[in-house]
Amino acid sequence: MEESSTIEQVYRGTFVHSTPQTPLLILEDALLGVNTHGKIAFIGEGKHVKRLSQDFKFSLSDVKQMAQHEFFMPGMVDTHIHAPQYSYAGTALDLPLLQWLNKYTFPVEARFEDLKFAQQIYNQVVKRTLRNGTTTACYFATIHTDASLLLGQIANDLGQRALVGKVCMDRNDSAKTYKETSQESQEETLRFIKELLEKKYPRVSPVVTPRFALYCTEPLLGQLGAIAKYNNIHIQSHIGETVDRMNVVKELFPDSKSYTDVYNKHNLLTDKTVMAHGCYLSDEELTLFRQTGASLAHSNKAMLYVAGGYSASMLDAVRRALETSKVLTIQNPGYKTLTFEEVFRLATLGGSQALSLDKQTGNFEVGKDFDALRVNVAAPGGPIDLIKDEHPKILLEKFLNLGDDRNIVEVFVAGKKVVPFTEKTQE
Amino acid sequence: MEESSTIEQVYRGTFVHSTPQTPLLILEDALLGVNTHGKIAFIGEGKHVKRLSQDFKFSLSDVKQMAQHEFFMPGMVDTHIHAPQYSYAGTALDLPLLQWLNKYTFPVEARFEDLKFAQQIYNQVVKRTLRNGTTTACYFATIHTDASLLLGQIANDLGQRALVGKVCMDRNDSAKTYKETSQESQEETLRFIKELLEKKYPRVSPVVTPRFALYCTEPLLGQLGAIAKYNNIHIQSHIGETVDRMNVVKELFPDSKSYTDVYNKHNLLTDKTVMAHGCYLSDEELTLFRQTGASLAHSNKAMLYVAGGYSASMLDAVRRALETSKVLTIQNPGYKTLTFEEVFRLATLGGSQALSLDKQTGNFEVGKDFDALRVNVAAPGGPIDLIKDEHPKILLEKFLNLGDDRNIVEVFVAGKKVVPFTEKTQE
Ligand SMILES: [Zn+2]
Ligand SMILES: [Zn+2]
Repeated sequence: MEESSTIEQVYRGTFVHSTPQTPLLILEDALLGVNTHGKIAFIGEGKHVKRLSQDFKFSLSDVKQMAQHEFFMPGMVDTHIHAPQYSYAGTALDLPLLQWLNKYTFPVEARFEDLKFAQQIYNQVVKRTLRNGTTTACYFATIHTDASLLLGQIANDLGQRALVGKVCMDRNDSAKTYKETSQESQEETLRFIKELLEKKYPRVSPVVTPRFALYCTEPLLGQLGAIAKYNNIHIQSHIGETVDRMNVVKELFPDSKSYTDVYNKHNLLTDKTVMAHGCYLSDEELTLFRQTGASLAHSNKAMLYVAGGYSASMLDAVRRALETSKVLTIQNPGYKTLTFEEVFRLATLGGSQALSLDKQTGNFEVGKDFDALRVNVAAPGGPIDLIKDEHPKILLEKFLNLGDDRNIVEVFVAGKKVVPFTEKTQE
Repeated sequence: MEESSTIEQVYRGTFVHSTPQTPLLILEDALLGVNTHGKIAFIGEGKHVKRLSQDFKFSLSDVKQMAQHEFFMPGMVDTHIHAPQYSYAGTALDLPLLQWLNKYTFPVEARFEDLKFAQQIYNQVVKRTLRNGTTTACYFATIHTDASLLLGQIANDLGQRALVGKVCMDRNDSAKTYKETSQESQEETLRFIKELLEKKYPRVSPVVTPRFALYCTEPLLGQLGAIAKYNNIHIQSHIGETVDRMNVVKELFPDSKSYTDVYNKHNLLTDKTVMAHGCYLSDEELTLFRQTGASLAHSNKAMLYVAGGYSASMLDAVRRALETSKVLTIQNPGYKTLTFEEVFRLATLGGSQALSLDKQTGNFEVGKDFDALRVNVAAPGGPIDLIKDEHPKILLEKFLNLGDDRNIVEVFVAGKKVVPFTEKTQE
C-alpha cells in the first residue's frame, strides 16, 4: 500500500453524485474514505466495511455514520461569478445591460482599488459562496491587480478552489475612472499571473480575463491569447449576452465573421476557455466551440439580472435552470424539459467539466479530491419539513428545490472541512 | 379617549408599506402604537414621541426602539395556497396539469381523510407560512369537512388570519378514491360553513370552494353560488389555468359563452371572489371580473409548477413575479417591467384587496389590525451581508431579493406576536 493511501476520514451513509453516463447515482449505505492528501481513496459498500478497513488500514471506530436524512453530494461549481458585484447583490436590478454597467458596475468596480474595501467584500463573497456549497468558483475580479491577488489569497485562506481573473478592458470610452491603457492591461495581467503563481496556492489559479470583446482592442485580445497560451492557463470572457451587444461587436470588428470568430482568431478559444452566456450564437459559432473544446457558462438568471444573478447560491441557479427549462417547454412542447437529475449534474460534474477541472473535482470518483457537501435535509431550524423518512432521491429533490445553507451542515474542499468556519476564519 | 385606544405596544423606527396611491412609502424614525384590540392606534413621527405619549397615554419607557437595519413591513397575503400540497413540496414537479392532478394531487388529498395526517401537515404548513411572513392565507383544503375544520382550528390556534375552503368536486371520473356526490358536496359545504362559523374564530372564515368548473356539475355550481350568497361569504376557485383546460371546459359547458361565464351565471363571481390563475382570459371575460368586483390571484410560479408553487414563502412569489415580468419585457420591449415597489404592494396591500380584507389588513393605516413583520436585514447567521448602513429602500430591496425567514425576526397578527412560536405552539 503506497503512502498516499493513508486514510484520514471515513464516512458511511448515502452518497449522491453524477457520472458522464448517469446524471444521478444514489449510493445507499456506502463507505467513502479520504486520504491524507484529501483525495478519495475508496468508495465501497457499507456492508464491506470490515474488508475495506483491512485493505485500507483504518479502524472501525473511526467510521463516521451519517443520519437517515443526511447525504453527501459533490461540492457545487460556479463557472461564472463577478466577485465585486456581491457588494450590491439584491439591488440595482432595473436596467438593460449596457446602461447598467455604466450606472452601477463600473463605479462599484472602481472602488476595488481600495484594498480595504476589496478585503471586506471578497471575504464576504468567498465565505457566502462556501456556506452555500460552492466548492469551486471561477471569478471575475476587477482591473486592479493587487485586489485580484487579494481575492486569490482569500479563496486560498478560506479553502475554496478558485480560478481568479484580473479583468482586462482597454476600450471603455464611457468610464472616466475605471479604465486602463492597453499597455497597463497587458503588463498587469503578466504581473498578476506571475505573482499568483508564485504563491503556489494548491487550488487557486489565475485565469486570463478579457471582460468582453466590446471593451477590448484587437491588439490586447491578441496579447491575452498569447499570454494564456504561453502560461497554459484558463481563459474566461463573455459572449453573445444580448442582441444589442452582438450588434455593437459587429460594428467594432468588421473583419470578423462573428462574435465567436473575434475570440477565436486571437487564440482565446481553447479547451481551458469558459465563455459566459452564449445565448445568441449561430450554429457555425457553436461548431467553433466544439472544435476548440471551449465551454459556455449559460446562466438563465444572468440574462434577467445582469448582475450575474443576485444570489450567491448555486441552488438558486439550479432552480432558475429548472424553471426556464419549463417555460421553454410551455412555449414549445417539442422541447424536452431538463430533469432535476440533469440540473444536479450541471451544477457539479458539468461545472467541473466546463472548467476542465473534472480530473480534480465534480464527483466521488476514486483519485479525485474530496470536494463535498454534507447535507442534512431535516436540519433543525432549517427550511424543510419532512413527513417521514424519505428516499434519498426525494431528499435530494427537496434540498435542490427548497433547501438553503442551513441544510449544508459541512463543506469539504480537498478533504479539508471549510464550513463551518473555524475561529480563525470567523473573525 | 375611548377604551379602544388603550395602547399596548409602541415601536419606534422604520416602517415601510403601501397605499393605493403609492407602492412604497418609507417612514423613517416613525412611531406606531397598537391598542389592546391589536389595532393600529396611531402612526406618527418619532420626534413627536412626547406629545403622542400624552395624547395616547403610554409611557416613554414602553417605546421599543428598533435597530438601524431593522424595519417593519405589513404581513404578506397569500391569496391562493393548497395546504395539502405542502406534503410533497419541492417534489413531483414533472407533469402537465391534468396528469399531475391524477398522479400526485388526488392520491395525496385522499389521505387527508385521516385526521392525524391532516393535523401533521396542516400544522407544518401554517407554521411554515407564518415563519415566512404570511400573516393572511387563503387556503384550499380537501373535500373532507373535518380535516378542513381542523385547518381552520390550527390557523386560529397559531394566530394566522385565514380563509379556509373545503374543496367541492362532484365530477371526477378519473379518481376512484377521491370524489364526492353532488349531495355530499352540498351538504358537507353547509356543515363546514356552519361549524366553522360557530367556532367564532376572530380571523378565520370559511370560503366556498368549487375546485374548478371542470370538476363540478352545473347543479352543484348553482348550489354553491346560492350558499355563498346566503351566507355572504368568500368564494374561490380556478380559472383559465391552461389552454388544455379551457378547451375541456368549452366541451363540458356548451351553453356558456366562456369559462368566466360558467362561474358568473351561477353567481360565483362577487366582490368576495378570488379566482386563481386567469392567464388565458378574453377581454370580455376580464370585463366580467371588473363588473362583479371579483379578483384574480395570478401566480407565475404556479404556471410552471402546478403544485401551486413549491415554496411556502411569499418571498419566492415576489421574486418569480419580478423575473417573469423581466422576461416579458425582454420578449416585448413595450411591456413595462414591474418594479420591486409594485411587487411589494402586490404581496401586501394588493393581496388584502384581492381578498376584500383591506379594511382589516394590508398596510399600516390607523384602525387596521397590526399585521406586521419585523425584519432584520442583518440578522446574525442570516443570508444577507451588509457592507454599511444602507437606506431603508435598499434594505427592503435586499430583503425581498435575498432574504428568508431568518430575517423575519417577529411576526404579528392583529397585534399578537405569533412568531417566534411560543412553547405552547412549538410542540
Ligand atoms: Zn458575467
Ligand atoms: Zn390552485
